[in-house]
Amino acid sequence: MQLVIRLSIEVISETLRTILTRVGFSNERAALCARLFAETSRDGVYSHGLNRFPRFIGAISDGLIDVNAEPSLVESFGALERWDGRSGPGNLNAYSSMRRAMELSAKHGIGCVALRNTNHWMRGGTYGWQAADAGFLGICWTNTLPNLPPWGGIRPTVGNNPFVISVPRSEGNVVLDMAMSQFSFGALESYRRRGEQLPVVGGFDVEGELTSDPAAIETSGRPLPIGYWKGSVLSLMLDMVAALLSDGCATYQIPSEVLKETKLSQVFIAIQASATNKERMLEEILAFMKSSSDDQAAVRYPGERTLKTRMTNLAEGIPVDEIMWESILKLDD
Amino acid sequence: MQLVIRLSIEVISETLRTILTRVGFSNERAALCARLFAETSRDGVYSHGLNRFPRFIGAISDGLIDVNAEPSLVESFGALERWDGRSGPGNLNAYSSMRRAMELSAKHGIGCVALRNTNHWMRGGTYGWQAADAGFLGICWTNTLPNLPPWGGIRPTVGNNPFVISVPRSEGNVVLDMAMSQFSFGALESYRRRGEQLPVVGGFDVEGELTSDPAAIETSGRPLPIGYWKGSVLSLMLDMVAALLSDGCATYQIPSEVLKETKLSQVFIAIQASATNKERMLEEILAFMKSSSDDQAAVRYPGERTLKTRMTNLAEGIPVDEIMWESILKLDD
Repeated sequence: MQLVIRLSIEVISETLRTILTRVGFSNERAALCARLFAETSRDGVYSHGLNRFPRFIGAISDGLIDVNAEPSLVESFGALERWDGRSGPGNLNAYSSMRRAMELSAKHGIGCVALRNTNHWMRGGTYGWQAADAGFLGICWTNTLPNLPPWGGIRPTVGNNPFVISVPRSEGNVVLDMAMSQFSFGALESYRRRGEQLPVVGGFDVEGELTSDPAAIETSGRPLPIGYWKGSVLSLMLDMVAALLSDGCATYQIPSEVLKETKLSQVFIAIQASATNKERMLEEILAFMKSSSDDQAAVRYPGERTLKTRMTNLAEGIPVDEIMWESILKLDD
Repeated sequence: MQLVIRLSIEVISETLRTILTRVGFSNERAALCARLFAETSRDGVYSHGLNRFPRFIGAISDGLIDVNAEPSLVESFGALERWDGRSGPGNLNAYSSMRRAMELSAKHGIGCVALRNTNHWMRGGTYGWQAADAGFLGICWTNTLPNLPPWGGIRPTVGNNPFVISVPRSEGNVVLDMAMSQFSFGALESYRRRGEQLPVVGGFDVEGELTSDPAAIETSGRPLPIGYWKGSVLSLMLDMVAALLSDGCATYQIPSEVLKETKLSQVFIAIQASATNKERMLEEILAFMKSSSDDQAAVRYPGERTLKTRMTNLAEGIPVDEIMWESILKLDD
C-alpha cells in the first residue's frame, strides 16, 4: 500500500537544498538545483522530480556528477556557442545553457548553445518553461544512452531522446516535452502495476509481435518508437546533431547501463518571440485545434494541464510517496 | 494498366523549363524551378516531383502563385530574419530562404529565416539536401492547411506539417523528411490501389475504431498522427512557431481546400557543421544503429536509399507515368 503525503514546495526545496549542501554543492547552486527538482514535482512530473532525487545523489556518490563543475565555453561562432559541461549536474548545466542561449538570442535574434559532457537533465520541459517564462521560443533536446531499438532492429541502439519545443503565452505557456518512445519504461511499469493494458500498441513481445501488454514489452526490451520508422530516425537525427554541434559523445559512446549514463550531448535554441504580438493568434490556434471534437476537453495542447496541476499542488501540497520521502530524509544524515 | 517510360533528367528539366517560361517565369527562375522538380523525381520522390507539376501549373492559372514574385526582407534581428514570400512559387521561395539561412549561419554560426505568405514547397527534403550539400546542418518545416485530426478529435484542425533535419556526410547526406501523419493520403491511395492493408494501424474508420484498412481511413478522413497524441501536438508546435516567427498565417488561417492551399508559413535553420571534423563519428553512429539487427539492411537511416535511387535513375532514366507525361506535354501548347 502506497501512502501519499502532501508537502509544501518550501519544505521540499529546503530539504533537498540541505542535502545538496551536505554533498558539497555551493549554497547558490544547491538552492537552484533543489528548486528545479521541487518545481518538477510541483508541475506533476513526479518521475523526474523528487522521485528521481535519490538516484541523482547516487550518481554523485558514484562520481558521475561533479557537483560544483560549471560549464566552460569551448568555442564561439557568434550566435552559436559550444560549451563543455565538465560532468556537472545535468539540470544546472542545462539551465545555464538555456539562459546563455537566451542571451545570444536577445543579441542575435536566435541563439544556440551546444553542450557536451553533461549529465541527465531530469525533466526536459524545465528548459522549455524557462525559455517561455522569459518570453522566448525554446527548442532543446538531449541524447541518451542506447535504450530504444530502432525500427527494423531488436537491440537498443538509439536513444529515447527527449525533444522540447515551447511557446510563451500569457495564459500559460505551450510546452511540448516528448521522448521518442511511445511509452517510457516508467510508463510501462505503471500500467503493469495497475494491471492495465496500454491504450495502443507500445512495443514487441519476445516473439516479435506488436503488443499492448506492458509486461511483455518490459520482458522483450523492445518498446516502439513513436510513429514506428519515423520516431526511430528522428531519434537518430537528434543524436547526430547534438553530438556534432557539441563535439561531444553520440549515443553509441554513452555507457549503456542506466546507472552509469553520463557524457550526454544537448542542444539549446532560443528565439526571440517578442517581435511579434500574436497573443490572439495563439488563442485562435488552440481554439481551432480543440474544435476538432464536440468535446473540446478531449483535445489537449501540451502544457494545458500543467498550470492546473501546479495550482493544485501549490494550494494543497505536492503529493509525495511517504516511503520515498523517508528515504530522502535519510540522505540528510 | 499503367505504362512507365524512362526519361533523362535533361529531357524532363528542359520540358518543364520551357513550360515555365511559357507561363511567365523569367529564364533563370524557370531553370531552377524545373531543376528542383526534376531532381525530386530523380531522387525517387515522384509524388512531389513530376507528378505534382500539373497541379503546380494549375495553381498558377488559379492565381495562387505569382510566378516572378521574389521574397522580400521584412525585418532583421541579426541571425534571424523574417521574409515575405509574396505568394511566389513555393519551391523557389524555400530554396532562396534556405540559401539565406546558410549565409546567416556562415556569419553567425546559426542562421534562421522565417518565411510567410509562401506556397507549397513540394518536397521538403529538397531544402535539407540543399543545406547538407553545402556543408550545413539544416532544419526546416512548413505548416499546411488543416488536414489532420488531432488526437482526441475527429475533424482536421492541425496540419500534416513536414519536418526536415539534415546532416552533411561525404558518403551521402543523412536527411530526415517526415510529415506528421503515419501515412499520407497519397500513401493510403497507393495501398488501396494495390489491394493491400497498411503494415500498421494508420487511422480510424467511420466507427472510430483503429484500422489498417486504407480505404476505411480515406472514407473517415481520419489518418493517425505519428505516435498518436505525440505527433498531434508536435504538429501544433511546428505551426505555432512558424506562424509566430514569420508573423504569417497559422494552419487555421490557411484555406482548407487542397487546391486552394496558400499563404503558408515556414522556418529554415542552417547551422555550421564545418567546425567539427566528425566523419568517423557519423559512420560509427550509423553502424551502431544498424547493429541493432543481425540483418543490417533491415535498419535504415534516412536518405540511405536516396543515392542508390538517384544513381539508378540517372543511369537508366527517371521512371515517368506515360499518361502523366503526355498531360505535361500538353501544357506546352
